[in-house]
Amino acid sequence: MLWGGRFSQSMHGLAWKLNESLSVDHRLALQDVRGSQAWVNALQAAGILTPDEAQRLHQGLAQIAEEFAQGRFVFQETDEDIHTAVERRLGELVGEVAGKLHTGRSRNDQVATDFRLWMLDTLPQVETALQDLQAVLLQRAAEHVETVMPGYTHLQRAQPISLAHWFLSHFWPLQRDRQRLQHLRPRLAILPLGSGALAGCPFPVDRHALARELGFLEASPNSLDAVADRDFVVEYLFIAALIGVHLSRLAEQIVLYTTAEFGFFELSDAFATGSSLMPQKKNPDLFELTRAKAAYLNALLNGAMNLLKALPSAYDKDLQEDKRYVFEATDTLLLLLPVIAAALRELRVHPERMKIDAFMLATDLADELVRQGIPFRQAHRKVGELVRKALEQGISLEQATLQEVATWGAIQPQVVLDPLRSLARREVWGGTAPQAVRAQLQLASSLLKSQNSHS
Amino acid sequence: MLWGGRFSQSMHGLAWKLNESLSVDHRLALQDVRGSQAWVNALQAAGILTPDEAQRLHQGLAQIAEEFAQGRFVFQETDEDIHTAVERRLGELVGEVAGKLHTGRSRNDQVATDFRLWMLDTLPQVETALQDLQAVLLQRAAEHVETVMPGYTHLQRAQPISLAHWFLSHFWPLQRDRQRLQHLRPRLAILPLGSGALAGCPFPVDRHALARELGFLEASPNSLDAVADRDFVVEYLFIAALIGVHLSRLAEQIVLYTTAEFGFFELSDAFATGSSLMPQKKNPDLFELTRAKAAYLNALLNGAMNLLKALPSAYDKDLQEDKRYVFEATDTLLLLLPVIAAALRELRVHPERMKIDAFMLATDLADELVRQGIPFRQAHRKVGELVRKALEQGISLEQATLQEVATWGAIQPQVVLDPLRSLARREVWGGTAPQAVRAQLQLASSLLKSQNSHS
Amino acid sequence: MLWGGRFSQSMHGLAWKLNESLSVDHRLALQDVRGSQAWVNALQAAGILTPDEAQRLHQGLAQIAEEFAQGRFVFQETDEDIHTAVERRLGELVGEVAGKLHTGRSRNDQVATDFRLWMLDTLPQVETALQDLQAVLLQRAAEHVETVMPGYTHLQRAQPISLAHWFLSHFWPLQRDRQRLQHLRPRLAILPLGSGALAGCPFPVDRHALARELGFLEASPNSLDAVADRDFVVEYLFIAALIGVHLSRLAEQIVLYTTAEFGFFELSDAFATGSSLMPQKKNPDLFELTRAKAAYLNALLNGAMNLLKALPSAYDKDLQEDKRYVFEATDTLLLLLPVIAAALRELRVHPERMKIDAFMLATDLADELVRQGIPFRQAHRKVGELVRKALEQGISLEQATLQEVATWGAIQPQVVLDPLRSLARREVWGGTAPQAVRAQLQLASSLLKSQNSHS
Amino acid sequence: MLWGGRFSQSMHGLAWKLNESLSVDHRLALQDVRGSQAWVNALQAAGILTPDEAQRLHQGLAQIAEEFAQGRFVFQETDEDIHTAVERRLGELVGEVAGKLHTGRSRNDQVATDFRLWMLDTLPQVETALQDLQAVLLQRAAEHVETVMPGYTHLQRAQPISLAHWFLSHFWPLQRDRQRLQHLRPRLAILPLGSGALAGCPFPVDRHALARELGFLEASPNSLDAVADRDFVVEYLFIAALIGVHLSRLAEQIVLYTTAEFGFFELSDAFATGSSLMPQKKNPDLFELTRAKAAYLNALLNGAMNLLKALPSAYDKDLQEDKRYVFEATDTLLLLLPVIAAALRELRVHPERMKIDAFMLATDLADELVRQGIPFRQAHRKVGELVRKALEQGISLEQATLQEVATWGAIQPQVVLDPLRSLARREVWGGTAPQAVRAQLQLASSLLKSQNSHS
Repeated sequence: MLWGGRFSQSMHGLAWKLNESLSVDHRLALQDVRGSQAWVNALQAAGILTPDEAQRLHQGLAQIAEEFAQGRFVFQETDEDIHTAVERRLGELVGEVAGKLHTGRSRNDQVATDFRLWMLDTLPQVETALQDLQAVLLQRAAEHVETVMPGYTHLQRAQPISLAHWFLSHFWPLQRDRQRLQHLRPRLAILPLGSGALAGCPFPVDRHALARELGFLEASPNSLDAVADRDFVVEYLFIAALIGVHLSRLAEQIVLYTTAEFGFFELSDAFATGSSLMPQKKNPDLFELTRAKAAYLNALLNGAMNLLKALPSAYDKDLQEDKRYVFEATDTLLLLLPVIAAALRELRVHPERMKIDAFMLATDLADELVRQGIPFRQAHRKVGELVRKALEQGISLEQATLQEVATWGAIQPQVVLDPLRSLARREVWGGTAPQAVRAQLQLASSLLKSQNSHS
Repeated sequence: MLWGGRFSQSMHGLAWKLNESLSVDHRLALQDVRGSQAWVNALQAAGILTPDEAQRLHQGLAQIAEEFAQGRFVFQETDEDIHTAVERRLGELVGEVAGKLHTGRSRNDQVATDFRLWMLDTLPQVETALQDLQAVLLQRAAEHVETVMPGYTHLQRAQPISLAHWFLSHFWPLQRDRQRLQHLRPRLAILPLGSGALAGCPFPVDRHALARELGFLEASPNSLDAVADRDFVVEYLFIAALIGVHLSRLAEQIVLYTTAEFGFFELSDAFATGSSLMPQKKNPDLFELTRAKAAYLNALLNGAMNLLKALPSAYDKDLQEDKRYVFEATDTLLLLLPVIAAALRELRVHPERMKIDAFMLATDLADELVRQGIPFRQAHRKVGELVRKALEQGISLEQATLQEVATWGAIQPQVVLDPLRSLARREVWGGTAPQAVRAQLQLASSLLKSQNSHS
Repeated sequence: MLWGGRFSQSMHGLAWKLNESLSVDHRLALQDVRGSQAWVNALQAAGILTPDEAQRLHQGLAQIAEEFAQGRFVFQETDEDIHTAVERRLGELVGEVAGKLHTGRSRNDQVATDFRLWMLDTLPQVETALQDLQAVLLQRAAEHVETVMPGYTHLQRAQPISLAHWFLSHFWPLQRDRQRLQHLRPRLAILPLGSGALAGCPFPVDRHALARELGFLEASPNSLDAVADRDFVVEYLFIAALIGVHLSRLAEQIVLYTTAEFGFFELSDAFATGSSLMPQKKNPDLFELTRAKAAYLNALLNGAMNLLKALPSAYDKDLQEDKRYVFEATDTLLLLLPVIAAALRELRVHPERMKIDAFMLATDLADELVRQGIPFRQAHRKVGELVRKALEQGISLEQATLQEVATWGAIQPQVVLDPLRSLARREVWGGTAPQAVRAQLQLASSLLKSQNSHS
Repeated sequence: MLWGGRFSQSMHGLAWKLNESLSVDHRLALQDVRGSQAWVNALQAAGILTPDEAQRLHQGLAQIAEEFAQGRFVFQETDEDIHTAVERRLGELVGEVAGKLHTGRSRNDQVATDFRLWMLDTLPQVETALQDLQAVLLQRAAEHVETVMPGYTHLQRAQPISLAHWFLSHFWPLQRDRQRLQHLRPRLAILPLGSGALAGCPFPVDRHALARELGFLEASPNSLDAVADRDFVVEYLFIAALIGVHLSRLAEQIVLYTTAEFGFFELSDAFATGSSLMPQKKNPDLFELTRAKAAYLNALLNGAMNLLKALPSAYDKDLQEDKRYVFEATDTLLLLLPVIAAALRELRVHPERMKIDAFMLATDLADELVRQGIPFRQAHRKVGELVRKALEQGISLEQATLQEVATWGAIQPQVVLDPLRSLARREVWGGTAPQAVRAQLQLASSLLKSQNSHS
């Protein structure tokens, strides 16, 4: 224990169990060692450690790092947290000089440093997982530029779209997510070390050198803020939750499009499950779980925000709980993203089920009237009435249109109501015309390759 | 795997990892066996199983129960969930007849049954932990009926109160929590078993008998609802989150009252922590963590509610995630409640720090004017002006009052501004007068003993 | 302003705007007057008011009540909240004696009382709206006991069910919601009045009589808790949020079943919307909004829980924000419930679209093998393989079954694979067989009529 | 109504009320007109409108803009939303040509454009309000560089800090918030217009020109994503909620430091409130409300995230609810920020209450031992024991230290235990030493001036 002197009684067993954080923060082991190695250098440069002391500490820390790397490090029951465990082990390895490591440092600035280092180490993994999923979406899109599928709004058939366009519509949200992760970096890569418990270090350590050595962009400008700030935690959790939302919207559509009723897609057996009771079932469990995980990711964000609300002092113990949220969110993302990527890669597409009925081309009909000079609002009404008439008479929109040709003039239903031509008309930037989709693919492809914040 | 026949390919490794639930639902082991034992009886009574088959199944299930109880049950890598694991082991023990157990049953009704059984088993533990904390509050209150302490509103000194009254103010919220847990019971103790996957069991099992055997109040009236309903989950999570809120308000006050500035309470060393840097620190970590856990409990509720929103069918895989929330909430409560109870039991009270300055009796002064016939609003204004005058002149309210005696008539400041007398005046039901507090203690004590929903 | 005396400067304009609550709590007007009328009686009985004074106050309050009822009450810019407004107006009407009304009372116990009264007044409206929706579900169910529709799990076709069963599956969650509202009552109908600011009233008012007069079940046992307790707020918000969840699940299914792909239901034009661009569109906006409102209701719960977390004293101003949450939740429910009821009443059903393909009867086939003595797990595998074979060969399950008859023995596919017979087999309590559904309807009907907490 | 043709029946009254959004989205009026003006230009450039038609539409739109600006625009009961209202009014003003405005445009891309424009217009207001608060913090800090106050961790006295340092610790979180708002811009300033309902515009409008004209950075690359994307909404709500968290932490500390027990600060009467019952009370209501609003802001984020989860199609009506969240969040921020700034400006500081007892300098004592070559861990233990001894003997830490001088060597307690010297020792970058704080002030000041994303 790092703080025995003042106390006349040791901690109650249950209280210990509530208080300990090792079961969670052991994941910061390597970062904790790395932070300590840099701190040794800083203390030596500040004249607090002799070269010899520094060397001994470095030897001990190097061995500890190796023990962690090889899974040989043995935790003790009395290790309260990862910092305590490392310091305890260091004492075993190098003796009394270990007691000099904590000079001018508090667990408050230490844990904030470790945690930021952990996130700096981990974010690239999340970014890569995002990129991998984006790459699959891109590849599937490239296969289906000219595949026509029904587009929906309000889950009602709306207008024909290119299947490539649909795949790409799930590419862009992830692109924004990656951009957000990059924008987080200037707020994440701020070094707290050297802030002490709250008031700053009383020894002349060079915090700018420390920052450089540990890969931070800057040293924090205010020691109170440095130990209290968990903005980087909740901002990351927000991005994670939003990734969850994006995946849930994709998942919802996969669930829909693999129903018997839609039938656009079919899951590979390797990414579907069956029923313990109903022999015919093939269920999209992975995508349902994706939806569920989106709720969980959002709950993690919510919990961390509530945790921070109205905290009274620079460092309150409430902050110890922050890591659980980040670890859970990260594990969830790194579990979900590769599964979805793999499942989409093997998704079978059934273009023959993607029927476009002529009603989906009603807007094209109205647009055609517009081209003949009729105000759109009037054209919309005319076509709406035609739709109603067709539905009432049980005839197709094509037939109904033909009946109107006399009065409406030179309209060729077979041209206007052709799905491929409908697609081709939407060739503005961002539109679903094959030509526009190809341009979009090109942009997406170049962004996917070029943009990587940590390379 | 319970559903191989229809599939030509086995599950992808990553997909398996996302899909499996054994790492969470293994905690339902005993309930799963119990549910299966009752199901064997139901199938036998319905003529689906011969007495001999039933006996063999019972032997196997009994052995499995024992293996779980003794921690000897060995899970296999291919066990997808607890239900699969039990059925797999049953097959090993009793052979092919094990394949008859799942007749007419789906994992949909099975897991809902197991989970409800688990909660019926676990709620009494939560209730007992609540009762234990209530008992401590009651005992500490009984010690301090006549201890006067400052009462606060807006965290500003308001009026003197009895410390017993303060302790009891944290008793009643927990009493409501226990009542809520009891009111949950009629919605929790509804048996889903016999609902099949969604449409009901096609064999003539007697669901009312099943309900009785398993300790449920009723059998569910609609099989679709039975497999879809997770109201009991979120209602429990709500109660847990509200317990968290109640504990957080208590914790916040402990944190405040153990500051150097307030100093009303002192934590036992066994329930406090120190600082790695600052040798003089004695920190209320446990109560700060209680606050943090309140945020977590609320996040769990929030996540589960989001999870349920807009689910499309009777059973969706999203529901698999429900257990994680309940287990986390329960573990959190069963960790927190005993620690708080123990810490309060050893809390040292410093009545000498609970000074009542005369300004806290300004209302009593106004009330005294009221007794002389002055409308309260006017009395309030007069006393308010007196307070301002005293503050401006730097004199006590007692002195300021004495200056007014000439104009205000027969007021005896030393009587009016006496904290104990102030207390004694509030003898209405629910008031802070010692007499009223004793009546309150009596009611609390009788409710604590009598009310237990599961005894 | 009720608290001028001590202050030398009036409130800053912006601060006033943040602080005022009249824009929200004006909705408590009638309850505020009612509470004050009871308080006049209590003060008179306690000898604080003479009969004459009490009479004058009653006259004033009666006139104020009338002014509110007729919408003639004129608020002033200086009215900070509803309590201030009423007291100010009372002074205008009856003069200085108005200043006696606030004797022994604080806005802390006053607002808690008003708010509980408001909820006691309003809950029956919510319950009635729930009942009305339940009645529609019941009526639509009664029309469709023998209508067969596909039942889903994981949004995949699972087994045939009765449409009545589906309608009723949305009846029971609302029944639980009503039960929850009833169970809230013993915690809601607790009178705070007479608790003063926090310490209890120093005048001998009879709080039990007050409780009876105002329709409460009991007077609160602890004055600190009485002014601090907002459990009834969050418990109500939880119930409201859960109603939202229930409605969202219903809504989601309506959205699905009105798609072109499912086509089970058709919305009346009076409960659908069109598109500004696409003339053919008919959108289920109301049900999409229902989903969205479920998110909002859950956010309200979440906000109120966060608000309460770790509040430091008996009454903190944070509590002023509680009403906004409750009013928003109530308005949302009272807007949603009738629209959904009306839309369901006019929902057109298309039984001809509710096709049951034979694959949905695969379980029945396995069950039939079970009846021939084959263990279910084996039967499940056999049928699963049959399904795979049928899918691979592109033949129906009926055809595939016929090919197996030789080996499987006396199976009559046309009997086993008949949807109506499949339904009829599930005649256990809670099952989808017409007979079971009729029993369910009877129970639902009797519960709908009998259960009303406030009648 | 924009979509009558296909419908045989008008909308039900209640359904209308649920469906209409004008009561919320009327705030987009000016942006709607601006978007339409640009659309007229785009249609004219694309040859859809003649110069004459375009001119007439421009005249009508200009008049509508003026009507809005002057508050003269009259909404009709039949106006479903702001878009309908503007188009209806345009028809009244310019006749049938108004029906040409909606050519190739849907409300889906229109509302997304209006909303983004509104946010682009509004963000600078939020940023300015943040800057104003930062400026006050900076100014108050500049006054108190050498004022020593107790610093807290775990709400226990920790080490002396400069009051300037404390003020600045609330400056930096707001600085990060402003940076976040700037980083939102590249994701916000993406033009959806020209995306049609979901598939893109079938007329050859130049979307890049449109983007430039309306002040967007780019035109959206995918029309499906363009109408579905509400990332900018939740990202803004996240930033707003985090601002709320930051303000709540500041507010919590103000509430604490204005208690009788701490007494560091005193609120101006203009920013405090009194009690209706207790004449002596002066309450920090505004800061309590700030805490409460933080919960509300977080709830808004939470609601919007839930709303988006698992939405099934490009545009679902659920999205209509997005604006309520953003408007509420913005109004809340623009109400809170100026009040807090004004209240802090007039906050009275009581340095005489900010006593530093010697126990707060225990770390300095340990550091002094370190300077004498004793390992910190050992020094920490020694000083901890000294603290315990002092507490047990009821003597000051200074006295206790003097008793040890014999054994500890050349320690001068009066130097080591001097608060100002303690401060001065923490002169590392980010530390609380006056010199370091002055450097910090300089950086803060330069960032405050230079950084403004929208100037």
